[in-house]
Amino acid sequence: MTERDVPSGLTASIPTPEKGDPRLARLSLNQRTTAEWSLREAIDGAVAAGLPALGVWREPLAEVGLATAAEWIADSGLRVSTICRGGFFTVIDPAARRLAHDENLRAIEEAATLGAPTLVLVPGGLPEGSKDLEGARSRAVEAIAALAPEAAAAGVVLGIEPMNPIFAADRGVVSTLGQALDIALQFAPEEVGVIVDTFHLWWEPGIEAQIARAGAAGRILSYQVCDWITPLPADTLLSRGMMGDGHIDFPAFTRAVAAAGYDGDVEVEIFNAEVWAAPGAEVVATMARRYAELVEPWL
Amino acid sequence: MTERDVPSGLTASIPTPEKGDPRLARLSLNQRTTAEWSLREAIDGAVAAGLPALGVWREPLAEVGLATAAEWIADSGLRVSTICRGGFFTVIDPAARRLAHDENLRAIEEAATLGAPTLVLVPGGLPEGSKDLEGARSRAVEAIAALAPEAAAAGVVLGIEPMNPIFAADRGVVSTLGQALDIALQFAPEEVGVIVDTFHLWWEPGIEAQIARAGAAGRILSYQVCDWITPLPADTLLSRGMMGDGHIDFPAFTRAVAAAGYDGDVEVEIFNAEVWAAPGAEVVATMARRYAELVEPWL
Repeated sequence: MTERDVPSGLTASIPTPEKGDPRLARLSLNQRTTAEWSLREAIDGAVAAGLPALGVWREPLAEVGLATAAEWIADSGLRVSTICRGGFFTVIDPAARRLAHDENLRAIEEAATLGAPTLVLVPGGLPEGSKDLEGARSRAVEAIAALAPEAAAAGVVLGIEPMNPIFAADRGVVSTLGQALDIALQFAPEEVGVIVDTFHLWWEPGIEAQIARAGAAGRILSYQVCDWITPLPADTLLSRGMMGDGHIDFPAFTRAVAAAGYDGDVEVEIFNAEVWAAPGAEVVATMARRYAELVEPWL
Repeated sequence: MTERDVPSGLTASIPTPEKGDPRLARLSLNQRTTAEWSLREAIDGAVAAGLPALGVWREPLAEVGLATAAEWIADSGLRVSTICRGGFFTVIDPAARRLAHDENLRAIEEAATLGAPTLVLVPGGLPEGSKDLEGARSRAVEAIAALAPEAAAAGVVLGIEPMNPIFAADRGVVSTLGQALDIALQFAPEEVGVIVDTFHLWWEPGIEAQIARAGAAGRILSYQVCDWITPLPADTLLSRGMMGDGHIDFPAFTRAVAAAGYDGDVEVEIFNAEVWAAPGAEVVATMARRYAELVEPWL
């Protein structure tokens, strides 16, 4: 993650874009990329790097409380691109489903209070002991239906995040953009849309057509970028790489997202033990450099 | 992998089906499940367990030579359900492409000589340094087109194996049954079909409809079973589990394959370090038991 650590095909000498560089105008630091940073540190780090936006996670938010977080963020001038994350509503037990619904209502409230246009929904996996994937998918749709009017009333759009099938069993039963969009289109655009994440979707057959379809319907709520690296790290949850370190064609993917009309923030969201072990400011600098080289020119 | 090692929800006391048990009539041991066994050991192990068929891998076949293997297999009375595997033809360099083509011609000859109806094709991943997934997919189709008439002339059908997206970068760029079928349908049924593998496809949205479509077109060449387990083992290539150890609903999947009209052999193909470390005869017994409980009743 240092200047010297540059994969072949990338420019080693590209300078880190500095504060005020127009290429940073849409770059958002998803808090998960600098997981060791508190919300305060993430705000300060994003501002110091000249980033205009932050993808806020609920756990570091809870550490300081919503009122304080809202004040800090307002003072910082940062946009909150998304709140991560709601969802996890594939449970079967009625009491657990009510708990999940209530938790998502709190997440919607947080998004509304912080001015985040979107709450990212990670559907959840198969409940313990269940092998009924169709059932889990159906319950996810039901849970979204129950939340959609509440979200719309709060001015927050629910963003279904289709997840790489590697997570279908234990994290996200919605596996393709096509599938996520089929669900989203059952609702109004001000209620439900989709999250387009390169790590999750880069392999999807016909992905460009699905991105175009999502854009035409006004359903792309967030564009999130990170790379697919091999060999896959042992902990698959931490298997995401810095853009340029893996196999994804970011220019091609980004062109498709731009052609679909998406003009919002671009979040860099990297779950990776090595990235997390590096100093936050260094990670943000690397991420800004890679973004400026591999993503921004094609937006 | 012992009698005591039975996941919850399975019957601990079910006896291992013995030689002559009609439930074994379609069960094939894919050699990769007992990877430590030579071809001779696999033949003897399958016969001893009362299995009627073997999925033969090319590497152990090469160790003894085609003529000897053909003699052994004819003497054993076993069917060869598939030859694993051809493919790996996403390379770019023209010389490398010719080499891959020639290697696949040898695989076709082996399949024909051993009486295997199907050569399993693993397309291959992104060539070193390339991020052009569409290009790799196109080259796979071109390579299949070049092989199809040769295969048909030899009486061997090429089976495209769509692979879990976890392998899209490094092993198989065809990622869904829908995509594999779209390719297969560009050719005659006696030239190209598809391999339906639970590990690769269990998560695919609309998989039942795709299986029905493949069956209606007469394109299902092999049904392969193993489980998706979590946490995923560190070496993703060895991440397949024994049926019942993971998250796949085998009765539902098997019913779909049966309803699609598939009446061929069912291969158990498990890449797993723990399975490989266990004595082969024990693995075959466990596999026959799990198959009798989770798969065979729904065929």
